[in-house]
Amino acid sequence: MAAAAPPPPPSAAPEPSMGPPETAPIGHPLFTRIRLATPLDVPYIHKLIHQMAVFERLTHLFSATESSLSSTLFNSAPFQSFTIFILELSSSPIPSLPSSSPAFTPIEKTFNFDLPINDPEKDVFSVHYGQDQVVIGGFVLFFPNYSTFLAKPGFYVEDLFVRECYRRKGFGKMLLSAVAKQAVKMGYGRVEWVVLDWNVNAIKFYEQMGAKVLPEWRICRLTGDALQSYETANI
Amino acid sequence: MAAAAPPPPPSAAPEPSMGPPETAPIGHPLFTRIRLATPLDVPYIHKLIHQMAVFERLTHLFSATESSLSSTLFNSAPFQSFTIFILELSSSPIPSLPSSSPAFTPIEKTFNFDLPINDPEKDVFSVHYGQDQVVIGGFVLFFPNYSTFLAKPGFYVEDLFVRECYRRKGFGKMLLSAVAKQAVKMGYGRVEWVVLDWNVNAIKFYEQMGAKVLPEWRICRLTGDALQSYETANI
Repeated sequence: MAAAAPPPPPSAAPEPSMGPPETAPIGHPLFTRIRLATPLDVPYIHKLIHQMAVFERLTHLFSATESSLSSTLFNSAPFQSFTIFILELSSSPIPSLPSSSPAFTPIEKTFNFDLPINDPEKDVFSVHYGQDQVVIGGFVLFFPNYSTFLAKPGFYVEDLFVRECYRRKGFGKMLLSAVAKQAVKMGYGRVEWVVLDWNVNAIKFYEQMGAKVLPEWRICRLTGDALQSYETANI
Repeated sequence: MAAAAPPPPPSAAPEPSMGPPETAPIGHPLFTRIRLATPLDVPYIHKLIHQMAVFERLTHLFSATESSLSSTLFNSAPFQSFTIFILELSSSPIPSLPSSSPAFTPIEKTFNFDLPINDPEKDVFSVHYGQDQVVIGGFVLFFPNYSTFLAKPGFYVEDLFVRECYRRKGFGKMLLSAVAKQAVKMGYGRVEWVVLDWNVNAIKFYEQMGAKVLPEWRICRLTGDALQSYETANI
């Protein structure tokens, strides 16, 4: 662990004159932006959800198509129902969006890495803005939930996903923070999501973000044939 | 357990001529109806949520007011966002609603009990339809959720509550079944809710209704000051 290494002595700090000129780039900058998804993003979203199913070893439960996503998403104003934030990445400054929803101002942040990130799927996830090109690195899908005790809506985060080559660099935190910030802006009372109990790294990450893990609650799910049987049930 | 008792011999079945006349009431009929809540129900809903907080020993988390409920509920069409079904009960046939949403046809069912149900809060929960009077016995609050794997919405049931004197008579099942039936009608893929892991009676009840309890997932919640800190967070 890097934390076990002793800190460098003060003299190891480079003098200003010893460093690179201020105008020269230091390391490898990565420009990022979080924006609302649009119907044009559906092919990318579909691929990202499939990658998530592969990662979770749950491809047998995956039946989404681009068509079924298109027909069930983007049917209401942002934040009123199912909402998706997209993470865009580029080694160059990202151009302004040609049009943007007044409901959300995109969040931009510049990272600086020692090494460039090799993205083997860069072409598959490229989006073009005129001559500029950005890469989609991940997404978060969330929607309003409701607390009767607070008499306030909140947000439930259904999916948070960052592509493999971009993980462990702060992008997941950036996406989840964007949802939390939007919740506060709207006066909402909670942001909730679920985690697998054996995923200790994820739990640690969420706790560092200020979340509490509720140990006693279990999810009940009525689906498939058991749900279909209610079609003709004599209530 | 009743199941351990031997079945009665065939001769124990009463002959038709030995039973009461068909026109005479048998036991105590209870007429019930599930309908969509309206803003006029808010005072009752507020009382029901408070009773739920008392039952769950969570009154310290209860901060809902009639005003905060009114301003956060009924802001969208039924089933598109937060939706409430109300359970009405009466010892007389329940009159038709003066007006009803085309989105949902109320569900009616007549029960028959050996003994009348004593409702100590009958006056507090009475609703008048002209000269007729019904009593509100419970509610279920639910809203759409979304499965990216299915690319389908579902319903999440936030609260299911039946007042104490009406419990263990099938009304909770009736309310939850109404949500399941509506989900099927809308082509939705899942109905989900949560249960406390020590509440074995509730778990048994839900499993009998066809639900699976997911053992591995835990809820993460970001709320209070931890959430508020994201207002000024430098994402």
